Amino acid sequence: MSFSSYQILLKKRDGGILEKDEIKWFIDGFTKGSVADYQMAAFLMAVCTRGMNEDETAALTDAMLYSGDVLTFEETSVVDKHSTGGVGDKTSFILAPLAAACGITVPMIAGRGLGHTGGTVDKAESIKGFNTEITLKEFEELLKTKKLAMIGQTPEIAPADKKIYALRDVTATIESVPLITGSIMSKKLAEGARGIVMDIKVGNGAFMKNLEEARVLANSLMNTAERFDRHMVCMLTNMNQPLGKTIGNSLEIIECIDVLKGNGPSDLTELSLELAGSMVHIGGKASTHEEGVAMVTEAMSNGSGLKVFREMLENQGGLGDVIEDYSLLPQAKCTTEVPAPRDGFVSGMNTRNIGLHCVDLGGGRHVAEDKIDFGVGFTIHKKVGDKVIKGESLLTIHHNEDQSEIVEGLIKEFTTVDYSFSDAETKADPLIYEKDIRWSK
Amino acid sequence: MSFSSYQILLKKRDGGILEKDEIKWFIDGFTKGSVADYQMAAFLMAVCTRGMNEDETAALTDAMLYSGDVLTFEETSVVDKHSTGGVGDKTSFILAPLAAACGITVPMIAGRGLGHTGGTVDKAESIKGFNTEITLKEFEELLKTKKLAMIGQTPEIAPADKKIYALRDVTATIESVPLITGSIMSKKLAEGARGIVMDIKVGNGAFMKNLEEARVLANSLMNTAERFDRHMVCMLTNMNQPLGKTIGNSLEIIECIDVLKGNGPSDLTELSLELAGSMVHIGGKASTHEEGVAMVTEAMSNGSGLKVFREMLENQGGLGDVIEDYSLLPQAKCTTEVPAPRDGFVSGMNTRNIGLHCVDLGGGRHVAEDKIDFGVGFTIHKKVGDKVIKGESLLTIHHNEDQSEIVEGLIKEFTTVDYSFSDAETKADPLIYEKDIRWSK
Repeated sequence: MSFSSYQILLKKRDGGILEKDEIKWFIDGFTKGSVADYQMAAFLMAVCTRGMNEDETAALTDAMLYSGDVLTFEETSVVDKHSTGGVGDKTSFILAPLAAACGITVPMIAGRGLGHTGGTVDKAESIKGFNTEITLKEFEELLKTKKLAMIGQTPEIAPADKKIYALRDVTATIESVPLITGSIMSKKLAEGARGIVMDIKVGNGAFMKNLEEARVLANSLMNTAERFDRHMVCMLTNMNQPLGKTIGNSLEIIECIDVLKGNGPSDLTELSLELAGSMVHIGGKASTHEEGVAMVTEAMSNGSGLKVFREMLENQGGLGDVIEDYSLLPQAKCTTEVPAPRDGFVSGMNTRNIGLHCVDLGGGRHVAEDKIDFGVGFTIHKKVGDKVIKGESLLTIHHNEDQSEIVEGLIKEFTTVDYSFSDAETKADPLIYEKDIRWSK
Repeated sequence: MSFSSYQILLKKRDGGILEKDEIKWFIDGFTKGSVADYQMAAFLMAVCTRGMNEDETAALTDAMLYSGDVLTFEETSVVDKHSTGGVGDKTSFILAPLAAACGITVPMIAGRGLGHTGGTVDKAESIKGFNTEITLKEFEELLKTKKLAMIGQTPEIAPADKKIYALRDVTATIESVPLITGSIMSKKLAEGARGIVMDIKVGNGAFMKNLEEARVLANSLMNTAERFDRHMVCMLTNMNQPLGKTIGNSLEIIECIDVLKGNGPSDLTELSLELAGSMVHIGGKASTHEEGVAMVTEAMSNGSGLKVFREMLENQGGLGDVIEDYSLLPQAKCTTEVPAPRDGFVSGMNTRNIGLHCVDLGGGRHVAEDKIDFGVGFTIHKKVGDKVIKGESLLTIHHNEDQSEIVEGLIKEFTTVDYSFSDAETKADPLIYEKDIRWSK
């Protein structure tokens, strides 16, 4: 069927409801190049300002999904997790091996860092030899034989999303629930997962600033999952402070291994077990969420999760020995402590800023061409609610010899802007605000 | 000052008010190429859906105006007219010579046909030798010595408008009052006119479908004119049927010469005199509108308008003898009558369709590259309110020998779709619905 870009733009501009075929024609045309960049830009802006209903969002997801290859598995216990992105958010490396150890197939298509948030693929690349640029065929084969594999974004999966995302990034059309839904769901559905666990980050270090926004997105994601016959769990989780104790690529890998050994910080451990437990539950290997959590907790205690993690690294050419010898991972030459400027309690952290500081040190990219320094980052000693004494270290900066000027600046930022303090004890927000589950029919 | 495209897009996307400097930076950047097509497309869509207030509209106009050259005259009686476009709308060729004959300098920057509407430049080109592609310097010189000249759109005047318009045309962002205002006013202000007479067409053959829309546009144009210290008259006029009796390039030129000779159809004559009279009034050569109309009526009666018209043609290389010998103008070889399908009264005409039929015959362009056939078109015998007898000719189609198939199709369209009939007498809408004047301080 043939449509006109003009008529489609006109309809959405004036708040009309687009037909499934119109959306499919427009997205296909853009992917092939017959719909121009500027027409897609106008479309994205019209969607941002006029919105899309459930039918349209599903049609958008469908069109983006079928713009590329779609994996299918005979196995039904195929579950993936997706996070909307945060600072210190490293749960993938923990929950994927734990869920796989409990019989779940985990097809992980991971992204790179974006703005202030870190990226799973960047973290993975701090492990020597670990190759996430395998072919889709190799990825599929690993999943069928080993249940777990990790791949970076590939042009074979949802190419429309890649092309659309690049435009959204330069036209101020990122923050739109239907566009976010289409982007996330098209990739997750293409992986062939039967269940998806969503970690929707909420707070000053997340793209969603408050619970209302997060609920709207969760609802849109769950509605779309249901239409595509997928089970979904949505967790709305705290991103008003970094997750765990580390920020920075190899520092975060070490922290993940610590968690898999049972020695990790409590917030990261708890969230990882909750998410992995949900994966086991909706993957059909546990009859309740609690049973799922118990199973993955056991996989952590008995070391089977760590074993699967090592195998995953080695299956993709990575140095498995890093789990025993952290010195095999990149490390920054210097450390500098950031002293608390006063006595009191930590009452807040500017999480987004802290993420951007890691980018400034070289732990992330300002522009796509930047090379990442895997060793730099932060080890956080004091978080929201913690008591501090003046002069005590709030965090350790891991940096290089020639970065003393940057470090001076960061100390000032951390002590005057990024940390806030109170005299009275402050309680941190809960780790998990809300949780919802939607079963497909 | 430097801004970010992203922040500007974000602000307008969320319904914010842009600063003058932000708008100027964005428009300048687009004209120079540092703001990309897709960013401008997103901006235009955001303006369409979120609107612009008076300050923003004035800033947009200013930025577009100063994207190119701006003419200035020592002479203060410089007045131009602009029409929003219609079918059979040919008043420029009549009112410009009449106003010039009464002492007004008329700097005419005219456009080409767009969609179903004809274009002044296309009509002008049906006169052998008449060159509207003169330089801006030549145009200025002619105005200073001869008071009247006609030029097509030139890259020297408001280049931002040309570039933006091309994008609006393919992104469904035409119908926006601030964007229309910026486009019209930037060009008119650049001509150096001290007064502008606006003919805002309303009806099924116009871009404005109803009086409310037209009033909103008129108000936006007058507010902008006032800010730029220009006098403005806005007339809201009837485009629920074609203006005058002809549609088609050389047919319309002939009809204009007939009006200048005092032999034209009454509606076209009346509207031309009203518009020209307003030009003389706001140009300061008459103290009232009525006096202005009387002066241009006299210029028509005594032949001075026709003389100025001939001079204008000859000043720009055109064949002045066309005013005596219409056979010097291009003529289609064949004519076919369209018979009334029934007795009764004409109760309505689908004006837009009729304009598109002229394009189908070759009298306008489907795509920018199409060559125009100047001779084809229609002579209309029956208009709204006219009594018809079955078989009597509604109109004459002027066409070429090889167009019998198109003509058959048109006869069917005219008799079944484009004309409607009633048993009872129907009165046509008034020629001029409303008129407003705004003096600059």
